[in-house]
This record gives sequence, C-alpha cells and structure tokens, in this order.
Amino acid sequence: MNDMIPPGNVPSDLVAEWQTLHRVFIRPEDEKSRQTLIKYMEQILFGLHEFLNSHVGVTEAIPLATLARSYTDTTIHREPEKKLADVIKDIINQIAPRAVNVASPYFIGHMTSAIPFFMVHLKAITAALNQNLIKLETSKVLSVLEKQVLAKIHRMIYNREQAFYDGHVQNADTCLGLFTNGGTTANITALWVARNRCLPATGNFAGVEQDGMASAMKAHDLERLVVLVSERGHYSLKKAGGILGIGNKNVIPVRVTPHHRIDMTELTRQVEAFAQNTTIRVAAIVGIAGATETGTIDPLPDMARLCQTHGIHFHVDAAWGGPVMLSDKYAGLLEGIKQADSVTIDCHKQFYMPMSAGMVYFKDPTALDRIIYHAGYVNRKGSVDLGIKTLEGSREASSLILDSALKIMGSRGYALMIEHGIDTARLFAEKIRERDRFQLVTEPVLNILTYRAIPGELKPQMDQAVTPARRRAIDACLDRINIDLQRIQREAGKSFVSRTCLKLHPDDAHTAVVLRSVIMNPYTDGRILDQILDEQEIILQSPEISKHLVSLS
Amino acid sequence: MNDMIPPGNVPSDLVAEWQTLHRVFIRPEDEKSRQTLIKYMEQILFGLHEFLNSHVGVTEAIPLATLARSYTDTTIHREPEKKLADVIKDIINQIAPRAVNVASPYFIGHMTSAIPFFMVHLKAITAALNQNLIKLETSKVLSVLEKQVLAKIHRMIYNREQAFYDGHVQNADTCLGLFTNGGTTANITALWVARNRCLPATGNFAGVEQDGMASAMKAHDLERLVVLVSERGHYSLKKAGGILGIGNKNVIPVRVTPHHRIDMTELTRQVEAFAQNTTIRVAAIVGIAGATETGTIDPLPDMARLCQTHGIHFHVDAAWGGPVMLSDKYAGLLEGIKQADSVTIDCHKQFYMPMSAGMVYFKDPTALDRIIYHAGYVNRKGSVDLGIKTLEGSREASSLILDSALKIMGSRGYALMIEHGIDTARLFAEKIRERDRFQLVTEPVLNILTYRAIPGELKPQMDQAVTPARRRAIDACLDRINIDLQRIQREAGKSFVSRTCLKLHPDDAHTAVVLRSVIMNPYTDGRILDQILDEQEIILQSPEISKHLVSLS
Repeated sequence: MNDMIPPGNVPSDLVAEWQTLHRVFIRPEDEKSRQTLIKYMEQILFGLHEFLNSHVGVTEAIPLATLARSYTDTTIHREPEKKLADVIKDIINQIAPRAVNVASPYFIGHMTSAIPFFMVHLKAITAALNQNLIKLETSKVLSVLEKQVLAKIHRMIYNREQAFYDGHVQNADTCLGLFTNGGTTANITALWVARNRCLPATGNFAGVEQDGMASAMKAHDLERLVVLVSERGHYSLKKAGGILGIGNKNVIPVRVTPHHRIDMTELTRQVEAFAQNTTIRVAAIVGIAGATETGTIDPLPDMARLCQTHGIHFHVDAAWGGPVMLSDKYAGLLEGIKQADSVTIDCHKQFYMPMSAGMVYFKDPTALDRIIYHAGYVNRKGSVDLGIKTLEGSREASSLILDSALKIMGSRGYALMIEHGIDTARLFAEKIRERDRFQLVTEPVLNILTYRAIPGELKPQMDQAVTPARRRAIDACLDRINIDLQRIQREAGKSFVSRTCLKLHPDDAHTAVVLRSVIMNPYTDGRILDQILDEQEIILQSPEISKHLVSLS
Repeated sequence: MNDMIPPGNVPSDLVAEWQTLHRVFIRPEDEKSRQTLIKYMEQILFGLHEFLNSHVGVTEAIPLATLARSYTDTTIHREPEKKLADVIKDIINQIAPRAVNVASPYFIGHMTSAIPFFMVHLKAITAALNQNLIKLETSKVLSVLEKQVLAKIHRMIYNREQAFYDGHVQNADTCLGLFTNGGTTANITALWVARNRCLPATGNFAGVEQDGMASAMKAHDLERLVVLVSERGHYSLKKAGGILGIGNKNVIPVRVTPHHRIDMTELTRQVEAFAQNTTIRVAAIVGIAGATETGTIDPLPDMARLCQTHGIHFHVDAAWGGPVMLSDKYAGLLEGIKQADSVTIDCHKQFYMPMSAGMVYFKDPTALDRIIYHAGYVNRKGSVDLGIKTLEGSREASSLILDSALKIMGSRGYALMIEHGIDTARLFAEKIRERDRFQLVTEPVLNILTYRAIPGELKPQMDQAVTPARRRAIDACLDRINIDLQRIQREAGKSFVSRTCLKLHPDDAHTAVVLRSVIMNPYTDGRILDQILDEQEIILQSPEISKHLVSLS
C-alpha cells in the first residue's frame, strides 16, 4: 500500500504520515509502546482523579467571558498539533480544572453526579469493541445481549409471568423496549408510538406515519390532538409535541396539588370534557415518576385507571425515578407504574452510567411495530436488526454497560445508593427546617428537594405584610436574593445547588425562585450538607445580598 | 453516614455492601488497588486486541439461534454476580469472540470500521469527566470548547470570512450547528428546522411548532408539505417525514441517473409542477454527498441553484462524505456543499470516532432559533446552555473527542485515510473488472462500490436470453446466488461484504441484489481484496450455489 500513498512532509512522530497513521489503527506489539498506552490510560484514570481531589469544589473560578476568549481559533490545522500524550496532559491541566466537578459530593444541584470508576472501564470497552447496534451484522452477540437486558428491565417494571419473558426475550418479531441516547429521545419515541396508535389507517387514509398529521386529522374528523401532563412535566414532552407535529401548545399542563402531584380532579375534568367533544382526541396522558424540579411522583394508579376507562395511552416518565424500583424499601413509591403503556428510564441518571444513555419500555411487545422502518441494506424485514424500530440509527452498546453494571452491583447495590439518596435528602430537609434563615419549599419524596433562603431581617416584614403590593415587593426581593445567593455560591466554586421557579402553592399568583438540591452522590453526607448551608448563611450576610433589602425599607 | 444504612449480608469483596459501594465511587488511593485498575484497563486495551488478532475474520462461527439460547435469563440478581475483573474477562472471552470484528481489514461491508486506538482513550476521558453538554452548569469549559469545534467544522463546510467566525464562535445567541448522537438525529433536526421555516406564524396561527401540522396546513392553505430526495436517500429521511408529522409518503424519492445521482431534469420538473400548485409546498430538497448504498454524490451546485430560485431549504446529507472536504485531492467532489442551508456529517463514520456521534450544521447562525426550548431549571433564556436548540437532552462531550482527534491527526491525517479509501476502492473496481465471474455495478466515486457475482455458466445464457420471461428467470437466479454468496462468506467468518438491492439501470423493471463494499480501514489493501474475491469465487463453485443454476436449465 505504501507505494499508493506518498508519505507527507511532517515530523515522523506525528500522525499525518502514512506509516504512523497505519500504526494508530493497531494496538502496538512491542512492550515499550504498550507501556506507553497504559501510561496514558493511567493518567486518564488517576490524573483526572488528582484534579477531582485537589478541587474539592465545583470549578476553577474563571469567568466564562475570559474562558471563551481562549477558544476562538476556528481553523483546523493541516499538520498535527499535538501528540496523544500532550492532548491528555492538556485535558488534565487545562480542560478538567475548568470543567464542572460533577463528581464532587458538594455538587448537589443537578442530576449529573459521580459514577462508579468501573463505568470508565466499561465505556472504554464499548469504544474498543465499537459495535453498532443498528443491525446484527455490526453487533451480533451484542444485539442478543441487548434483548436480554431489555427483558430484565421490562421485568423490573412490569413483572409479567415467566412464560411471557421466555417467549419474548429473544423473539425477533417483538420488542420489549429500546435503548436511546437519553430520556428526551425515549419520551419522543413513546409519544410517537402513542400518536400513531391514536391515528390509525382508515378508508383511503394510510395512517399518520405515512400520510402525515394534516391528513390524519381530516381522516379522523379531528380538530385537535392533545397530550396531558402535569405542570411539573419535563420540557422534553413539550418538545416532543412540537417535533411530532402535534403542536407544543397541545401538550397541556395540568395543575398540581400542593404536593406537586397532578390534580386528579382537574385531570379527570379535562379528560371528560374532551370525551364530550368528538373533534378532540387525547393521544396520551403522561405520569411523572420523579419530577425534574421536585422529585415528586404522580398518583400513577389513579392515572392508569383513568387512561384505561378512556382507552388513552398511559406513558410514565420515570427518567429519574425508574431505578427506585430496585429498592425494596422505596419501590412502593412507584406503585402503578406496571399499568403504564410505556415507561422512560434514564441510564445516565440513577443507573449511574456515563452520558448518554436512556431507555423506553412498552407493555405491549408489538407496540413498536407502529414505527417500523426498513431499508434495503440494513434492517431487512424479519431480521433481528434492532434498528428497525428506533428513532435513532447507529448506536453504541450502552446495553453492555448496563448489563455489566447490574452484574457488578446486583439490584441490592443500586438499592443502597437509591436509599442513601432518599435518606440523605430527608436528613437535609430536617436541617433546612431547623435553620431560621431557610424555608423548605418541597419535601423530598425521592432524593430531590427545594427550599429558599430568607434573611432574618425579612421574616418580621413578611409577617406584617398585609397589602398585596407589599407582599409582591417582598416576593420580588426574595427572588433576587436567592438568584444571587445561588450564583455567588456557584462562582465561589466550593459547592453547587441549582435553582428553579415554583409556585409555593398552586393558587399563588407569584412563581418564586427556589434553590434545588439533588442528592445522589454516596459521599454527600450530613456534614457536607451543613457546610453548604453554613456557606449560604454567610453569603446571605454579604453586602451583595444586603443591598436587595434596602429597596424594601 | 454508615449508621443510616445497615450493611447488607453479602461477601465483602462484592459491591452490594455499603463500604465497598462507597469505594467504587473514588479512584483508590493505595498503590495495589491502583495497579489493579490499571491491569483491567490493560486487559481492555490488549486483551481485546488479542481477540482481534487471533480472529482475523469477522466472527466466531456460532449460529444466532444457538447464541440466543445463552441469553434468556431475564432476572436481575439481588446480590452481585461478578467482580469487575470477571466481567472484563467474560467480555474478552465470551462477548468479543461473538461480536463482529468491525476492526478487521477483511470487514469491508459496512460503514463501521477500525478506529485509531487513541479513540478508546478519548472516550474513556469523556466518561471520566462525565460532563453533560445540555447546560453550562454541568459542562462549563466543554460548552465553550464545543462551540469552537462547531465553528471549525462550519468553516470546513462554508468557509465564511474570518469576521463571521470571530462574531459567532463564542456568541451565546447564535449557533453554527450541533452535536447529535448520529446522522439520523442530525437529518431529523435539519428537516425539523426546514418544516418550521416553511410554516411560520401568520394571523392567529402561532407557527407549526406551537400549533401543530394540521393547523399549520390550514393557516397556510396547504394540502401537502413535501420533501424531495433521490431514490438513494438514507431511510432516516423517510423516518424524519414520519416523525415530524409531514408523512413519510411526502418524502418523495426522485429518480436517479444511471450514475445514481438525482436526475435534475426530473427534480426540476417536479419542483416546477409543485410551484404551479398553491396547495403544495416543498419544505426541503435533500442532496446526498455519499449515498449509503453507492457512495455517489448528487449534483449539489445544480440543486443549490434550483433551491435558491424557488426559495426552498437545501439540506445536504453528508453523513458519509463530509470529511472528504479535508482532502485537497478529493474535496472537489463535494463542490456546492457550501450553498446548503444545512449539512449532516457523522463523527462515527469518516471522522473515525467510536459510536455514537453525529453533527448538523446551518449556514444561517440563527436557523436553530426555530426549535428553541427553555425550562425553568435549565436552558434559561440568554444563557449559553447548548441544550436550548437540540432535539436531544443530556449529551456527552463528543466534541472533546473530535477536537482532540483533529489535533492529533491534523486535517492531513484524515485526508490520508480518506484518500486511501477512495484509491483502494478504485483498485478494487479494477480487480472486479478483471475477473470474469464478477460484474461491477457502481463505480466508486468515494470509497464505496457495488458489484455482483455471475457464475461462469450463466454468462452465455444471459447473452442468449431474448424473452422477458427468460431474463426475469436469470435475474431471479442471480439474486438468489448473490444472497447466498454473501451469507455463506459472512458465516464462514473470514471476510464480510454487505448486500443491498439496486436497479442496474434506472429504467430496469428489476431491482437486483448486489454486493456492497465500503473501504475505510487503512489496512485493507489489494492483497486482502484479492483474497476476498478468491473466496467468493470458491463459494460460487460450491453445491449451495450451483443448486440455483439447476432451476434455469
């Protein structure tokens, strides 16, 4: 081959030269090169770890604007700029310290956290094998293994009889679920199936998938197709409405009870009103099992009953809460989930897998037939090609990671982590209640809670505020204080909580800024939570916060 | 914390026990444990390599049905089943030999191939950092870096002036493109933007994203929204039509020339016919830069002109061909791509990255404003959160891998691989032409070609066949022979070509089975290609193939 490609004029230890290029495609044979590669991996495993240890907080304090100025060169260099060793060194020295230390036990603001170290090994394995799950010809045993893992999780959710799983686990014609790149794609897939179920072929109309939404609505004499979900629903559901041509306005937020669960009276009222109107059809009702903002869980059994009565597709977004089913102690919180027609669960959330992996499951193993796509060169009819019924095309073997993790941890291992998160969140709620300067906004049903800071000076003013104008002024002041408090703490780089906006009571006119905490790191404990609250109390007394109080006096 | 969670009754060296569980979240401090972790990574890097070396062919010869029988246990065990070491050992001994050796230079059938070994390191780094690109608060510098990489590839495609890139590279309000999990999601995103561009708000109608497809068609007095793409278009485009509510029937396949490029006369005729009909609107025309089946490239400059004349969104699906732009020698093949409104390029194809990563780019940095979604807790308005304008939610830092690879390889390094693929495919075409028993069906424009086997005995019969019935019988016989040939070679496990169905000439009634070869492994050379053809010639003489000839005589 060498005579075909003339070697370039570049230093021989860099890659843009045919011989070197050739070598990067095989793992080297000689001991010295092997040792070099191992050394690089050691740097990745432990060099990054040094950073995690030396930066106990969240990030190096460097403003975004300053950072952005270092990343403005937009040319791809013709010759190699760096060797692998230098790229790794730069990532450890330049990138990691300016990334977010999501692995810190002080990082309790988002659903991204520390992962067990073996996950890095498992991710490296999937990359080294580089199988493509779109079809059997590029994955073979991995497709078979994926079907098995899908059956295991389906069983965790639906717990059907043994014969059911024996009949479907390796059945090429049916599909218990699928791996996606995350919960958003899982939710879109579930609503895609629900949409198609709801607008089937009739007369000359070939079905919504073939003929589109406009023809579908005509063929079925409909004016509107709607999806109902509580106000706490993840924004991916609205996005799904937009993508699927349903219209995101038709993903209707239903009011919640004071406990942030969907208001069944209101939901029932709406469903019954729609049932009276033949021009409106409900494509799906979505229950939430672990709301992104509050961790709350909808009354799934009640919702399931309502859906059954009206023949409506019942989807449960358990992207966050799904793995709670592995805990004997808390599985009861998800009662009713087995009646769902479809269920979303994320792998990169409480299955503690690295980004990005999610899943969606269907009670009916033929439900995914509504989104079948074939092609001449892949995914031929009758094949076991898993890409026949997926939104995505080429896909990595996330299923191998989940399967391995389940074997290493056992369901009990996961349960311990889930239980730690919930128990620690409850402990945190206690600590917040015990402090005068904080107000617990939502109790932790799972491992998520919200609260807000209230400076001591404001408490008597709140009690004395009688006019609506005065109350609004205090609310606005509190919002500004909590926005700044969260920002100052984040920028200080020692700990991180996030913030969102919630109505303290469903009937409130005001949507308040609240602090939000997600506890999933097994190293987050009472001592750390005290430190985080202590730091917030100190910030509360700073001039940057006090200045907001002036406007009130 | 220990007093909160009672330790379980499991062996202490397994994970479902609180102390052990705790430990798997930190990289160990003591030297012995560190060495163990390194040893595992060594097994992953080199143990898998031993397999790749000892199985020069594609897979262990084990029938799918037999394999499936080993993967039927659908219970998640309560206690851990295996330690990490055993999981890795099992993957090396049980999984890898039954996976597909896509890294073999004899695997020339699909767009999944060997990747440079450093890609495994880079993937391990993204897992170890575990950043989530959905928002700045879980990615910080990685979001900044991603914007830079996006600008680099945008520049490769569009080559706008320096001031343009200076103005947009770190601009929080604009977006030059985005990373997706693959080409399918990239294509869906492009057509999503095109759909929304084409059905904007008017009067009381708030736009298709909010109000849905049915209202949109009414508001715009339309009966049909269509997308035009050649018959060689990837099936993800049809799927996009289905998902987006356009209807997959309205993704219209346009006939191709004998060179498998879109027939401009036919395309122009259709566009002009639609232009006469006010009830039909063309949402997008899609040009292909590297057809999945044939590697062919549409006449992009002509298509761009037509789109401009009619004000139609021009999308180019360069999932396969995009990186060819890095080769001075072959970049000219993609002439006209810079006039596209949007362009799909896959990372896990000719950027040689591990599964799964793709990208989509937009000429107009505000094009993605048409698919903006916000939420209270993430992706707030005015933030640099990259998740505001994406189909997906949480996302891993694929951009870090591409950025590092570009630095390690230089554009010249990629160009060498691209040029090797195209040059070797041309060499392969020569070899096929030189052999009597093969017919080259499509010339390799890029590194993909198709051909079919024709047993010597059939040649004279083909020449003598005068009646249509006789020709049909021969065609059917050839199809069966090529189907079996491909299967027998695949099952023998030494080499792999894929197969698809093509009309040998656009006017043919018959769609023929053809063999398909994709050459992207730098180790695939003339000697290997000869071995693959030799093996096929031997199979052609086997009883399994000869039996098909009997039916003809």
